[in-house]
Amino acid sequence: MKANDVQAMENRRTFDASGVHVVNIMASPGAGKTSFILETVRRLGDQVRMAAIEGDLASTVDTDKVRAGGIPAVQINTGGGCHLDANQVGRALPDLPLEDVDLLFIENVGNMVCPVGFYLGEHTRVAISSVPEGDDKPHKYPSIFANVDVLIVNKIDLLPYLAFDMDAFQALVRGLNPEVQIFAVSCVTGEGFDAWTAWLREQALKG
Amino acid sequence: MKANDVQAMENRRTFDASGVHVVNIMASPGAGKTSFILETVRRLGDQVRMAAIEGDLASTVDTDKVRAGGIPAVQINTGGGCHLDANQVGRALPDLPLEDVDLLFIENVGNMVCPVGFYLGEHTRVAISSVPEGDDKPHKYPSIFANVDVLIVNKIDLLPYLAFDMDAFQALVRGLNPEVQIFAVSCVTGEGFDAWTAWLREQALKG
Repeated sequence: MKANDVQAMENRRTFDASGVHVVNIMASPGAGKTSFILETVRRLGDQVRMAAIEGDLASTVDTDKVRAGGIPAVQINTGGGCHLDANQVGRALPDLPLEDVDLLFIENVGNMVCPVGFYLGEHTRVAISSVPEGDDKPHKYPSIFANVDVLIVNKIDLLPYLAFDMDAFQALVRGLNPEVQIFAVSCVTGEGFDAWTAWLREQALKG
Repeated sequence: MKANDVQAMENRRTFDASGVHVVNIMASPGAGKTSFILETVRRLGDQVRMAAIEGDLASTVDTDKVRAGGIPAVQINTGGGCHLDANQVGRALPDLPLEDVDLLFIENVGNMVCPVGFYLGEHTRVAISSVPEGDDKPHKYPSIFANVDVLIVNKIDLLPYLAFDMDAFQALVRGLNPEVQIFAVSCVTGEGFDAWTAWLREQALKG
């Protein structure tokens, strides 16, 4: 077993001992990961106790936004690193009130390639693919689409302005990953969030 | 010197011996790299002899598109690799008619983090950042913005539908990279392409 996986299993034991459901969110830069977390927090904040770990090469802009959204958050800066690893996550955990958290988001570094290869101890793996990125991405980056539990198709409010074939896109994704849950959403209009938050709430509160 | 850089210098000697100007194009997945190359080819095709190397984890969809646009192209599939390296490019060169080419585009793997660390032998480094990705990207991925010659701000036709502060974005980029050339373009409306193609044509034909 890789050193990363040893630490990831240790992280998982910590999460399970505290009753925290952990969601690892992976996507390209600019797919809308932080906005998606913020809209989820806004809708579930009175039902589920949430926190976040924010991964970026540099800066704390995402952690600042998420804290302003009302949940505890810790920033991990990777320097040049193109993904989070289990050691970085393990070192961040003492800075979070895990005993008072039901659901922890880990926002990975914006990158469609590297993060999917590193297990962090999470229960649920989510990829976000946004409409402006185009409907051909599963052809070109198959590993992320094949190895997640949930795919969020974000920014559907932009569908009228772009050539994006939703049926073809979802068919490509299901060809790589027949079991994936797909939710199409907009953080601007709120469309699609009811189904996503109902699903997530069930995962978070089932223990 | 790293092994990659030794091969990159070898690639550069090959390019210079053939009089080929090489442009390494780096961006997130879905920033519009292929569409940007195609629109450039459409506008410069009668003045400059062009070719392309297309890098992706999998598939030949981009090479098929670029060949359909009328220029020779070679696909490099990296498997899981998150960037092109100089050896991959060196191995692709015998499959291109370099003696009949003025300008070679290398479309890197869609990734804002890893490609910028690997010199391929290019003369000009271009990053593309698209409007839907948001105006905060230089905070979070500084290395790509700091280490390119040209920044293309793509998809400006979507500005009316998105909260993107162009002045703030360009100020952030210039803070990281005062010498960078910036061109704001749309592959849908053609806006901004005249300035970009005039600049590029001069680079390509000056020898």
